[in-house]
Amino acid sequence: MRLEIQCQNRLGLAQEVLNVLVSYQLDLRGIEVDPGLGRMYVSFPTLNFEKFQELMAKMRRITGVEDVKTTAFLPSEREHNELSTLLKTLPDGLIAIDSKANVTVINDAALEVLAVAYEAIVGQSLQGMVKGFNFQRWLEGDDVLAQTRRLEIHGKRFVADILPVMVPDETGHEILAGAVINLKSESRLGQHMVAFKKGDQ
Amino acid sequence: MRLEIQCQNRLGLAQEVLNVLVSYQLDLRGIEVDPGLGRMYVSFPTLNFEKFQELMAKMRRITGVEDVKTTAFLPSEREHNELSTLLKTLPDGLIAIDSKANVTVINDAALEVLAVAYEAIVGQSLQGMVKGFNFQRWLEGDDVLAQTRRLEIHGKRFVADILPVMVPDETGHEILAGAVINLKSESRLGQHMVAFKKGDQ
Repeated sequence: MRLEIQCQNRLGLAQEVLNVLVSYQLDLRGIEVDPGLGRMYVSFPTLNFEKFQELMAKMRRITGVEDVKTTAFLPSEREHNELSTLLKTLPDGLIAIDSKANVTVINDAALEVLAVAYEAIVGQSLQGMVKGFNFQRWLEGDDVLAQTRRLEIHGKRFVADILPVMVPDETGHEILAGAVINLKSESRLGQHMVAFKKGDQ
Repeated sequence: MRLEIQCQNRLGLAQEVLNVLVSYQLDLRGIEVDPGLGRMYVSFPTLNFEKFQELMAKMRRITGVEDVKTTAFLPSEREHNELSTLLKTLPDGLIAIDSKANVTVINDAALEVLAVAYEAIVGQSLQGMVKGFNFQRWLEGDDVLAQTRRLEIHGKRFVADILPVMVPDETGHEILAGAVINLKSESRLGQHMVAFKKGDQ
């Protein structure tokens, strides 16, 4: 269950919200505070309707609270859903690997190409499943540059954009975190060429 | 500043953590609880080293707390960074629009194609900038089906995969949330064709 609490930015208000949860023996799952919007979001296990009504009334009586309503997601969950839905929808295979070439993110199209279940590939090395490129050697090279290569997966041919992923460390210096691989199948490439030419008619 | 607290799953522990923060007049920014891993993560404004040492000692004295250490990100932030870095790195333009054809997510490649700044396009309609497809009419149609179309942006030609994005509502029923547009430029398409043929030599 999640609540969106409209409130003043008052020190200690989060504590009073927590007091209410504890009084119902509810384990906190998460709090997110957006001081700019004057909003606090709380996530906790579901409770029955009667107790829930009571809890809402108590929340509304906390000094500085202006409104309380239920919400489907915490802001971070909404953002996460949006991006992961976007990846899920992409027709081309998308795989992120860490600096040891282990899979960290993979979308449905890529799972289909690799003919593997999500749980079976996440955290595992991609190398064994892909012919035509040595990810590990490339990641350990002096210059890790973007590549466009032809790969083979289960006997099928793909063109892949292979790109280094850089992230800032604590000091703001960019470090290599891994890579992202964007797979395009021969049939999709053909489909795009047709769409291009069709535009000329 | 962010702490990773290794602790037992004890009711009211979050409150005691908050008590310590409030005692230093620190506004809470967020708490995330991972009961499975026995971890709690807390985010709050930075404070000077001396006070920070004191605060850490107090945290460690809370019953049920086994270890406290600093961490760069809350789990939700780490996941968010990973996905948004992935989108940022993708060489093809990627744009997500809501059900009113307003831009919600856009990566660097797409900003470059549209020759527009992120702040200027987010929340605004994509329609005015793209010739060759009526997003609004498509989104309001009875059957919102995936399309591969040729579009024109600033006089340049692109092939676009245009796909509906479905999300489950509270009852689990799939509803149309918007769409994702994957832009491929003529030059990138050519580059991929070359890579394909080169693989044959």
